[in-house]
Amino acid sequence: MNSFLRDGKGMLLAYDQGFEHGPSADFNDKNIDPSYIMEIAAQGDFTGVVFHKGIAEKYYTGKVPLIVKLNGKTSLPKGEPVSTLVCSVEEAISLGAKGVGYTIYLGSANESVMLEEFGEVEEEAHKRGIPAIAWVYPRGEAVKNDTAPEIVAYAARAGLEMGADAVKIKYTGATDSFRWAVRAAGLTKVFMSGGPKAPTDESFLGQVKGAMDAGATGLAVGRNVWQHSNPLKMAAALHEIIFNNGQIEKALELVAQ
Amino acid sequence: MNSFLRDGKGMLLAYDQGFEHGPSADFNDKNIDPSYIMEIAAQGDFTGVVFHKGIAEKYYTGKVPLIVKLNGKTSLPKGEPVSTLVCSVEEAISLGAKGVGYTIYLGSANESVMLEEFGEVEEEAHKRGIPAIAWVYPRGEAVKNDTAPEIVAYAARAGLEMGADAVKIKYTGATDSFRWAVRAAGLTKVFMSGGPKAPTDESFLGQVKGAMDAGATGLAVGRNVWQHSNPLKMAAALHEIIFNNGQIEKALELVAQ
Amino acid sequence: MNSFLRDGKGMLLAYDQGFEHGPSADFNDKNIDPSYIMEIAAQGDFTGVVFHKGIAEKYYTGKVPLIVKLNGKTSLPKGEPVSTLVCSVEEAISLGAKGVGYTIYLGSANESVMLEEFGEVEEEAHKRGIPAIAWVYPRGEAVKNDTAPEIVAYAARAGLEMGADAVKIKYTGATDSFRWAVRAAGLTKVFMSGGPKAPTDESFLGQVKGAMDAGATGLAVGRNVWQHSNPLKMAAALHEIIFNNGQIEKALELVAQ
Amino acid sequence: MNSFLRDGKGMLLAYDQGFEHGPSADFNDKNIDPSYIMEIAAQGDFTGVVFHKGIAEKYYTGKVPLIVKLNGKTSLPKGEPVSTLVCSVEEAISLGAKGVGYTIYLGSANESVMLEEFGEVEEEAHKRGIPAIAWVYPRGEAVKNDTAPEIVAYAARAGLEMGADAVKIKYTGATDSFRWAVRAAGLTKVFMSGGPKAPTDESFLGQVKGAMDAGATGLAVGRNVWQHSNPLKMAAALHEIIFNNGQIEKALELVAQ
Amino acid sequence: MNSFLRDGKGMLLAYDQGFEHGPSADFNDKNIDPSYIMEIAAQGDFTGVVFHKGIAEKYYTGKVPLIVKLNGKTSLPKGEPVSTLVCSVEEAISLGAKGVGYTIYLGSANESVMLEEFGEVEEEAHKRGIPAIAWVYPRGEAVKNDTAPEIVAYAARAGLEMGADAVKIKYTGATDSFRWAVRAAGLTKVFMSGGPKAPTDESFLGQVKGAMDAGATGLAVGRNVWQHSNPLKMAAALHEIIFNNGQIEKALELVAQ
Repeated sequence: MNSFLRDGKGMLLAYDQGFEHGPSADFNDKNIDPSYIMEIAAQGDFTGVVFHKGIAEKYYTGKVPLIVKLNGKTSLPKGEPVSTLVCSVEEAISLGAKGVGYTIYLGSANESVMLEEFGEVEEEAHKRGIPAIAWVYPRGEAVKNDTAPEIVAYAARAGLEMGADAVKIKYTGATDSFRWAVRAAGLTKVFMSGGPKAPTDESFLGQVKGAMDAGATGLAVGRNVWQHSNPLKMAAALHEIIFNNGQIEKALELVAQ
Repeated sequence: MNSFLRDGKGMLLAYDQGFEHGPSADFNDKNIDPSYIMEIAAQGDFTGVVFHKGIAEKYYTGKVPLIVKLNGKTSLPKGEPVSTLVCSVEEAISLGAKGVGYTIYLGSANESVMLEEFGEVEEEAHKRGIPAIAWVYPRGEAVKNDTAPEIVAYAARAGLEMGADAVKIKYTGATDSFRWAVRAAGLTKVFMSGGPKAPTDESFLGQVKGAMDAGATGLAVGRNVWQHSNPLKMAAALHEIIFNNGQIEKALELVAQ
Repeated sequence: MNSFLRDGKGMLLAYDQGFEHGPSADFNDKNIDPSYIMEIAAQGDFTGVVFHKGIAEKYYTGKVPLIVKLNGKTSLPKGEPVSTLVCSVEEAISLGAKGVGYTIYLGSANESVMLEEFGEVEEEAHKRGIPAIAWVYPRGEAVKNDTAPEIVAYAARAGLEMGADAVKIKYTGATDSFRWAVRAAGLTKVFMSGGPKAPTDESFLGQVKGAMDAGATGLAVGRNVWQHSNPLKMAAALHEIIFNNGQIEKALELVAQ
Repeated sequence: MNSFLRDGKGMLLAYDQGFEHGPSADFNDKNIDPSYIMEIAAQGDFTGVVFHKGIAEKYYTGKVPLIVKLNGKTSLPKGEPVSTLVCSVEEAISLGAKGVGYTIYLGSANESVMLEEFGEVEEEAHKRGIPAIAWVYPRGEAVKNDTAPEIVAYAARAGLEMGADAVKIKYTGATDSFRWAVRAAGLTKVFMSGGPKAPTDESFLGQVKGAMDAGATGLAVGRNVWQHSNPLKMAAALHEIIFNNGQIEKALELVAQ
Repeated sequence: MNSFLRDGKGMLLAYDQGFEHGPSADFNDKNIDPSYIMEIAAQGDFTGVVFHKGIAEKYYTGKVPLIVKLNGKTSLPKGEPVSTLVCSVEEAISLGAKGVGYTIYLGSANESVMLEEFGEVEEEAHKRGIPAIAWVYPRGEAVKNDTAPEIVAYAARAGLEMGADAVKIKYTGATDSFRWAVRAAGLTKVFMSGGPKAPTDESFLGQVKGAMDAGATGLAVGRNVWQHSNPLKMAAALHEIIFNNGQIEKALELVAQ
């Protein structure tokens, strides 16, 4: 994971929402353009950027280390979620990837499909010398609350058990319970998932601070940056918290500047 | 996609309806004959022609660049749609294809089958140096209205995210909403899907004009040309709109001549 | 298909009923013996004989060109039909096959399984220089009437679109409607399926005459020959119609002799 | 099949019940031990012994030609039966197998899975020069009576059509109806399945005699031998019927001695 | 299995619960850390340690022979259990494994998936010269009581039939009934599954003693050791019973010391 870390911390800009949620759910006229995001990643000094292969192929400039998401689904089908490979590790590398990502819907009736595929992705990625990062999202009828502390910890642990170099998980809502998830992940790095745009900058930065205090390695964020009116200022604020171990107040000032 | 473009625009003649809808649904005694279509493609100066492999093998004359549709299904089975590979990229190339097409029924409960297969098709096609074109049709119980602007934009975006060089999508009914879909597709070329024979030439040409004004690269058309009483005149009219940025009135005159 | 044609016409003796229907449904003490059928094929001057691999391996004498049926199912399971590969193209060739056959249950909920497999069979067969023949039988809950003209034409067309060299389809009941199916098949050869034993020789020969008049290439027949009290006379009658363009009266005389 | 025949007849000792039925259903303290069965096979002069791979690996002594059963299931799951490969042809050969066995649950909703796998097994086995033996057991909701003469004949015929060198089928209860099954199997050798322990030696030997009189090649027997109080005497009795064409009375004397 | 035995007996420390049950179900702040378990395995003189690949990769120190569990699932999904490969035999070996483990949910509607995969694992493992160990757990709607003697014996036997070198099964509750399971396993080594933390040391040690007296090769234990307040003392107690054929009283003293 060192390609995506600075002093052991990381801040990834995620932009797979066009596929996962659809452009009309998350995008406006600016952020619908992948170039805009590529620019934010570079100028905002992110330590990595996450694209699906099509975006990577057509918009990736090389300015920030690339993670290609290998599987994907749309938000349209109902029923137990399943997301399967749309890109091979080999193709991802040919597009410039220094790491690969894969989403596991833990608890889905189709869980085994994704566990098996991630197992293969991990093996292949490690053979080729790049990290495999697991987006572990408990989902499906059997999962009542996907931010419950024990469920988030389970997601973190599944990443460790499966050989993920890093795991992206949702925030539990509190430092203490998230610390348990970080413990569960062991030597697997934990990235907090940014999630949908928070109601206020303060609430979002508070979550990030909470996760970092709990021992997270960093943040994988999308909407809270590129839906922000000033993404670079938000990036600066996140830097303050993630890399400088800064306080929320200081970070909020950086957004407000 | 340059093989299928002229000055950045394209006009593809699609003829997969014999498989997808059945001969009795769409054909008359003339257009049931693939030679008739091959002739229209050539004389009508189309920039590409779309066949399934069987038609390509037996009727393709080489006069117009060929796209082979790699997957297919009939209209007979009910239930969630699924269309799987019936032709490999390798076989398509051996039949003269300069590009390959694949239909994704986005939102189907079987969506993942097609996303995964298209991912493989795209990788293989690009390895061999030809474009992969995605017919993205939202369909299935979860899709209430497959021409709703946000659904069409989702289809366009899925094409971009999946690495399609071009995407064929339905018209939303209005330039403004279609522009959003074109935006969503980014650097992936957008071809409007011709759809069933329009009630009047004017209404059809109006749709095409609307799509082109919205930024589309062109049109993939079948029935509105080869079900037309004078396909070559309709082709001329489409040329006027697509390549000359002409007005509907001028185009209508060309049909009427 | 030239291996199986004489002056552009063909008459195939089919004997896959032991697998598809079971011995008790169709056989008597004579025709349960594959040697009896092999003998009829040779003496009756058929242009091809159709066996599953087991029969081919143990009974094929080489006197008539061989088609090996590559997939099969029994009549026992209820539900949507599916018939998958039980023999590879390679194995068929090793058994002496000069062509391969494959059944597609068009319209079945499992249609895609068979379309995909036939696509692979066709590619492999053509690579090895032998024809791929599609038995296209619309079947399953979505198919109300499998001899309706538009359904039979759809079956014929699916064969063409899939790259079949020949298609075996049911008779529609009338020359005019069958002509539409032949038109739909285009350059793919059409073989009428003999079906169950007709009530009279006259009715069966009338169907064959109707199909030939509609432009069929020939007939693939089983029960109407080997369940006949005098298979060789029936073969002679079929020759009269298929190869000599003879009238039913003349043909009936040959059976009666 | 010659490896498993003597003067054209065969007597196989089957011991797959530990897997298929479970040890508590069929075994006592003696016959739970595979060495006991291996010994009976040798001393009882069987022409073949049938084991799953684990038993073969740990207990096979080489004294009797070995058939390895390649697929298996337990009796626990309800629903339509399916039994898939647990051993490859290659592994079976490495364990000393001179033949391979595979169970097809004809009529099961999963029938196609097993037909396809057996097709591959047969091809591979024949490439490597050993016979493929089909255990054909009609089973599943669509099968009302698995010893009905027409069902047993169907099983026999399916074996022939699929290229099995021998088929193991249940007894129909009468010589005449079993003769039809033997006819249906053609050149494929027919082994009667021994089934559960018969109420009396006489009734069992009567079945075997009936099958042999109907033209069977031999018997594949398990429980009626190794659940017998004196397996070697029962083996001698079976020899009398199978190899010496002896009468039941004579055979019964051999058991009673 | 010799790598994992000492004088023919074995004591394996299992630690796959983080994946199978989740960290919050089984772990506390100490035993959530795989290093803690690795240390217990080494200091407690276990003959083997069982990890999933992620734990093996990041925490395995080489001090105790390693078994990598090749398949896994979470406890979240409802319905018939299925656990598929997440690690190949090759990858396991590259992580230092001297043996591989695989869980079969016998009786599940998905049983065939796991039987087939284990069959492949066994073949591959033996080709590479390492043992394949089957965790055989009867489970699913068809299994009413997974510790019933006949069910446990079935599990043991399935391991033998499938070629497992060792089988891990639940205790039946009594020496006599467990002896039947050991008999069923034949030459396949039997490891009693430790299961959830027993109410008292005495009850747990009693089970182990019962299993050993029944002929078991040893124990695969997790929670009863690493959830114990003094894991090394419990390990010493288990040594007394397993390797020294000691009495429960002696063993209890060792825990109490």
